[in-house]
Amino acid sequence: MPGSDHTADLGALIQTHAPLLKQAVEAIHTRGYWSAFPESPSTRIWGANAPDDGKAAFDAVRDNDFPITTPGAEGTVASERSPYGFDLGVRYPHLRSAGVAEVVAAAGTAMPAWRDAGPDARVAIGVEILRRLSGRVFEMAHAVMHTTGQSFVMAFQAGGSHALDRGLEAIAYAAEAMAAVPTEAAWEKPRSSGEPQRLHKTFTIVPRGIGLVIGCTTFPTWNSYPGLFASLVTGNPVIVKPHPRAVLPLAITVAVARAVLAEYDFDPNIVTLAVEADDERREGLASVLALQPEVRVIDFTGSSAYGEWLETHARQAAVFTEKSGVNCVVVDSTDNLRRLAANLAYSLALYSGQMCTTPQAILIPRDGIATDTGHLSVDEFVAAMESALAELLDPPAKAAAILGALANDGVAERLAQFANATDVAIASRPVVHPDFPGAAVRTPVVLRVSADERERYGNECFGPVAFIVDTESTSESLDIWRELVSTRGSLTASVYSTDAAVLARCEEVAMSAGVSLSENLVADVYVNQSAAFSDFHATGANPAANASLTDAAFVASRFRVVESRRAQ
Amino acid sequence: MPGSDHTADLGALIQTHAPLLKQAVEAIHTRGYWSAFPESPSTRIWGANAPDDGKAAFDAVRDNDFPITTPGAEGTVASERSPYGFDLGVRYPHLRSAGVAEVVAAAGTAMPAWRDAGPDARVAIGVEILRRLSGRVFEMAHAVMHTTGQSFVMAFQAGGSHALDRGLEAIAYAAEAMAAVPTEAAWEKPRSSGEPQRLHKTFTIVPRGIGLVIGCTTFPTWNSYPGLFASLVTGNPVIVKPHPRAVLPLAITVAVARAVLAEYDFDPNIVTLAVEADDERREGLASVLALQPEVRVIDFTGSSAYGEWLETHARQAAVFTEKSGVNCVVVDSTDNLRRLAANLAYSLALYSGQMCTTPQAILIPRDGIATDTGHLSVDEFVAAMESALAELLDPPAKAAAILGALANDGVAERLAQFANATDVAIASRPVVHPDFPGAAVRTPVVLRVSADERERYGNECFGPVAFIVDTESTSESLDIWRELVSTRGSLTASVYSTDAAVLARCEEVAMSAGVSLSENLVADVYVNQSAAFSDFHATGANPAANASLTDAAFVASRFRVVESRRAQ
Repeated sequence: MPGSDHTADLGALIQTHAPLLKQAVEAIHTRGYWSAFPESPSTRIWGANAPDDGKAAFDAVRDNDFPITTPGAEGTVASERSPYGFDLGVRYPHLRSAGVAEVVAAAGTAMPAWRDAGPDARVAIGVEILRRLSGRVFEMAHAVMHTTGQSFVMAFQAGGSHALDRGLEAIAYAAEAMAAVPTEAAWEKPRSSGEPQRLHKTFTIVPRGIGLVIGCTTFPTWNSYPGLFASLVTGNPVIVKPHPRAVLPLAITVAVARAVLAEYDFDPNIVTLAVEADDERREGLASVLALQPEVRVIDFTGSSAYGEWLETHARQAAVFTEKSGVNCVVVDSTDNLRRLAANLAYSLALYSGQMCTTPQAILIPRDGIATDTGHLSVDEFVAAMESALAELLDPPAKAAAILGALANDGVAERLAQFANATDVAIASRPVVHPDFPGAAVRTPVVLRVSADERERYGNECFGPVAFIVDTESTSESLDIWRELVSTRGSLTASVYSTDAAVLARCEEVAMSAGVSLSENLVADVYVNQSAAFSDFHATGANPAANASLTDAAFVASRFRVVESRRAQ
Repeated sequence: MPGSDHTADLGALIQTHAPLLKQAVEAIHTRGYWSAFPESPSTRIWGANAPDDGKAAFDAVRDNDFPITTPGAEGTVASERSPYGFDLGVRYPHLRSAGVAEVVAAAGTAMPAWRDAGPDARVAIGVEILRRLSGRVFEMAHAVMHTTGQSFVMAFQAGGSHALDRGLEAIAYAAEAMAAVPTEAAWEKPRSSGEPQRLHKTFTIVPRGIGLVIGCTTFPTWNSYPGLFASLVTGNPVIVKPHPRAVLPLAITVAVARAVLAEYDFDPNIVTLAVEADDERREGLASVLALQPEVRVIDFTGSSAYGEWLETHARQAAVFTEKSGVNCVVVDSTDNLRRLAANLAYSLALYSGQMCTTPQAILIPRDGIATDTGHLSVDEFVAAMESALAELLDPPAKAAAILGALANDGVAERLAQFANATDVAIASRPVVHPDFPGAAVRTPVVLRVSADERERYGNECFGPVAFIVDTESTSESLDIWRELVSTRGSLTASVYSTDAAVLARCEEVAMSAGVSLSENLVADVYVNQSAAFSDFHATGANPAANASLTDAAFVASRFRVVESRRAQ
């Protein structure tokens, strides 16, 4: 009988994953270093065949039908091209607006049983999906690399293991939030005399509705997993709508989720994949899905314009958005110029500045700064950055491993526009990728502007474009920084100073403007990096994002509690 | 030196309130019966002089200036009239739209020090405000009675002790949510060889901004305290904007808060009072305040129309609303007709049906129901309800103690309109209040309608108006109930059935439509009642409210976390 097997299996699964979950819940409260998924692609961890098997799995879906079904889809669509210079040719079920009602209905049908499974079962299923995905991490790394343009190692880490950690982190928050609500209570209110009043109460976690996850092109897994797993384990069926140019990583994710769900006798339509063609984006499958009354939670990463559209129009849903912003670096003084420059150069170069966490505006007093090598003019600072970038990005193989490839023509065009400007301080140069000569690999361009050119450095230039901004003083740097955080939004901020008073002022700006701060990073941790279980990614307190990955607020409103009480 | 005293006092206060807070946090997770503030107005608890002292304090502010200042206010305004038949004449600082910038600026100025005080201090101050308010509970009972029309005992309980419990409950949730974030962490990431990467990280709870609490006429304290205290202890200065006809209870509250804050050397403008004249409501001080960019959290209780206006327009803020709805009772069968009728009669009569939790639509199969006294026709059910109401509401003193007074002319006019209808099944009658002959005291009117008269019983009729709705069957009753919850919203739901299968179907409707359910209440607990620390008031899952009092989602987004990290 499937029913009893189902229960038995689920019970075992809950037990299996309980220790990991306990560690994860502990980690979110101590926030020291912790990770559940190894970030190294070493064969010592994964076995000698893992790299080849992963590559083979990736190759097997190329120019092929991806093995998945989507209710309401008709025919297939293939719209991915690797930034490394070839079409993927993977064909996915094609969901058009006309099919939306069907996929929404399928999710709705799946909902009650998923709700009734209860938090423990849902959480265990969520962890199991992550575990299975971890087993396919080499395949995932190729999928992420060839949709985003990340280098293989970065795709393995950020797109694989770190994304899984972010997913587990969200599950830990959700599990804890649900566990905080008792399933039942005996209520006994004493009277002045006689027997107390007695009620028996039950409390049921119910989903908010259907979840919608709208993925982005650059971090399809890392940015989607928190919302996907938070919605899923709190009882919401989830429709995953990838960016048409970065489908494969989320298709693999959804396929694994559906397989695990089916294995435990749940309706696989608890997680579905919604793929449109790239040239249909203006029609907007995402928008059609987002406005369905049954869709009650939306997670989105992408442009401010579309994020704000969702916040404004999808009023029936709780909308969690990570949008664009301008990240600042305040350079005031340093006792280690060489390592400052090396650290900052790495931050600008990593994945060609195509991270929402990449610094864009480097604010430095026009009279120069104090350093361990004496007073440094801004010209000398520019020279130090140029040397650091040159050293970092040579030879080409090393450069390619750090830079990855430009994700798409839009980034390349934006770079070209800035690279031809008159105020270029450090030129961008092309790099020939040793393995993929068709890839667009470019070093960052750094422009030199003055503080009053706010419209130039104060608008997001997504990609390898940064500005060294001459300011009147560190005080003006702080004023500009505060204003940019408050008006344009920031995902990160960074300061270099040997002056405790300046650091204290920076911390005050960070707290009041609502952005997290990295201070004097000179070793091999970079401002761009955000570690699950320790760093909160975005604060939700400035225009760049209305939520944080991950905190209690990110999960708490994804479910509701329905009480039932009766006399005893 | 004030600084050191300040610190010493705060430390002592934190210690003093720690045990109560611990109990409160335990209570929100066990959800059995627990209360911190005695609900009985007995002199054995409060002392022989407490009733007279409270009355004297209330009398002292009548026709007088209320002792409070509000930045930006000019002159005074007095707009309260007791539903028991006299003008209060209390004069408050008059805040007009022109003064809003000043009160907002004052709150903004107060914010950083309040943030820097940290969660423990803020929580202790919050609990201390509640403790001081408890010491003025008799005065508060008169204030609530003579603004809302509640009877004295109800005003003492719902407006006094139960409101304080709801405030403490919100503080407990907020304290726990803030405590879940560590203040610092040592992050050590191992490397494959050599020393680990090390960062020191600090995490600071920062407020979302300024909180705005918009009070209602019927439960000025009970419905305002959760938002007020949740915002306050999470670091948000709070502007309290009472309804012009129910100012005094919140003026006392704000005055106590300001006194406690000042005593501990905080800026009293962390909590301010914003009072407009009753005839200015259309201009809308609430709306002007709600649209200030600095206002980032809004708590509102009142009409659906205005709640939806806030949700739509105050986009810069997290908006928590409790709006109107239609509450249903499903009558299927009973093994105790007499007590069913008595229980339901009390629910209809309590505070003249002026509770958001009062049942409005009693759904019963037109062929009657099975009872312990045999088959009962709907006519007989009506007769049973009429007898129960007659028995409950006699003599007049007892009737007045249950009914209280109609809060305002609007309620009286609505009642009059329904009382003159042709489908009245149980007539409303006036009751002469023994102490306040000027009070409008009326027993409920009950109308008899058919299931297809949806527009009649399916729109909220706030006040002592209920409908007995003849349905085809209990199945149709469930369909109507589900539809009304989903489309009109409900704060409560109730079912009477001896059939376990019917109860199970009701629980399924409750879970999927998102409303809490009371089953077979026949003793002296009523569907209208919602106990802090045990019952969730509203689910946030249907149109009647977008939040629940109180759950983790109610507090989690009132603060953000700002991280700072540096190399070690």
